Amino acid sequence: MPWFYEPYNDISAIGIHITDLLHHEQSPFQDIKVHATVGHGRLLLLDDMVMLTELDEFVYHDLITHVPLCIHADPKQVLVVGGGDGGTVREVLKHPGVERVVLCEIDERVTRVCQQWIPSVAGALEDPRVELVFADAVEYVRRHTGAFDAVLVDSSEPIGPAAGLFEGSFFADLRRALRPGGIVSAQTESPFYAAETVRNVFREIRGVFSQVHGYIGSIPTYPSGCWTFALASDDRGPAMLDERRAAALRCKYFNLGIARGAFALPEFARLLIDPA
Amino acid sequence: MPWFYEPYNDISAIGIHITDLLHHEQSPFQDIKVHATVGHGRLLLLDDMVMLTELDEFVYHDLITHVPLCIHADPKQVLVVGGGDGGTVREVLKHPGVERVVLCEIDERVTRVCQQWIPSVAGALEDPRVELVFADAVEYVRRHTGAFDAVLVDSSEPIGPAAGLFEGSFFADLRRALRPGGIVSAQTESPFYAAETVRNVFREIRGVFSQVHGYIGSIPTYPSGCWTFALASDDRGPAMLDERRAAALRCKYFNLGIARGAFALPEFARLLIDPA
Repeated sequence: MPWFYEPYNDISAIGIHITDLLHHEQSPFQDIKVHATVGHGRLLLLDDMVMLTELDEFVYHDLITHVPLCIHADPKQVLVVGGGDGGTVREVLKHPGVERVVLCEIDERVTRVCQQWIPSVAGALEDPRVELVFADAVEYVRRHTGAFDAVLVDSSEPIGPAAGLFEGSFFADLRRALRPGGIVSAQTESPFYAAETVRNVFREIRGVFSQVHGYIGSIPTYPSGCWTFALASDDRGPAMLDERRAAALRCKYFNLGIARGAFALPEFARLLIDPA
Repeated sequence: MPWFYEPYNDISAIGIHITDLLHHEQSPFQDIKVHATVGHGRLLLLDDMVMLTELDEFVYHDLITHVPLCIHADPKQVLVVGGGDGGTVREVLKHPGVERVVLCEIDERVTRVCQQWIPSVAGALEDPRVELVFADAVEYVRRHTGAFDAVLVDSSEPIGPAAGLFEGSFFADLRRALRPGGIVSAQTESPFYAAETVRNVFREIRGVFSQVHGYIGSIPTYPSGCWTFALASDDRGPAMLDERRAAALRCKYFNLGIARGAFALPEFARLLIDPA
């Protein structure tokens, strides 16, 4: 049986033992593949980069969702940018106070493919609280001011369709899209293999928001297995964690310890994220 | 140029882009290779398993060393079990109170090869505080009771020469090798790809020591990139961290935040390590 290898910067690679190619199409935006695997469940590739496997997708989705939502005072209106696979929406819906989740994904085909082939991740998109918007999030965010308690930027790599989601002007628009007390989270790449990207995106976010914190987690099928996230707000920070809500969630990765401990950055990553 | 791939359980693999094979020998215990690489510095393989790369070895060596030594009240006599590459010894020597470090490595050839080919890691073995013992650590520990403030079990995988270092009887011997107030750390494998090993080794350690804690870190070139460690003692625990000493160390991974945050276990790992 074959292996899929994703190389990073020509220095390292992660291999996943695959079996069948369940689906393959070229959408208007990117190449989309779903493989079955020997030990990782279903595998979603966009432009031959690992977006998720069913084995470890819980790490990413827990961290990008529950950290900001447990720090926000009472999130009701949530926007997920990107995240067409539905995993972040699935986690948002675990918060009983949430009234509405908008998923703004540029590529409808990603969502439809995941609904068909990876229902363990995309199944929550059927929930009546979910609104699907297939559009460019840069445009969507610009047209919605003061609308959301939390925006979760669940983007792909900063090349291809997601490049604009790593720019300071996008974060300025996100700031205007927030309601008072609002909060943003974003995936911000590997501190081992994409140090300059991490440094740059945090510099951009710090130019916009008054409170910016980095946090971190272990995702085996992403480059280096070590991944950073940004938490940005003008009003809220990690010290304002709602411990009661955090402890009440039932997750595979997130718990009350992680809600605090994920902000403990290795020194080399802290120097990229918080150089002051 | 070629790639080296290390597969795990036939489900995943990590690839490292290598250049020259600098050294290759079969020792009485194992196959030893040192490669140059495109982006990871020198690479040490034992029986074709990644032991370290110069790019990320600091993570493992920081965690196995500084966490226990900053929790111990005043470590003076330290034993490193395995760790023939010298990286753990290098970190132990950063603690100014340490008077003597014994490295007990079963395979002298590992140490000699690293001294020749990976001096950035093995160079500290020249320090006059270091005593090299090339012997089976199981025997060595049994013959030295009440001798060490800290024992750091820097073993290879629980197959091959290191198998005995994962057994409860070894931890019982370690407990007898400690001076009052003594502490043990040990590498305890990946919670993603070696869940049963993690569960079993913690069960063994809990049968011996009254205070056992798991902690965790991100090592890109180890299986899953996520690695666990055990901290075991009858006297000391994470709450007894010496913050002054932890903050004074200059490391690439360890810092005061990590000294606390590394004990925040993802929920699925917590259930393996601390099932009660």
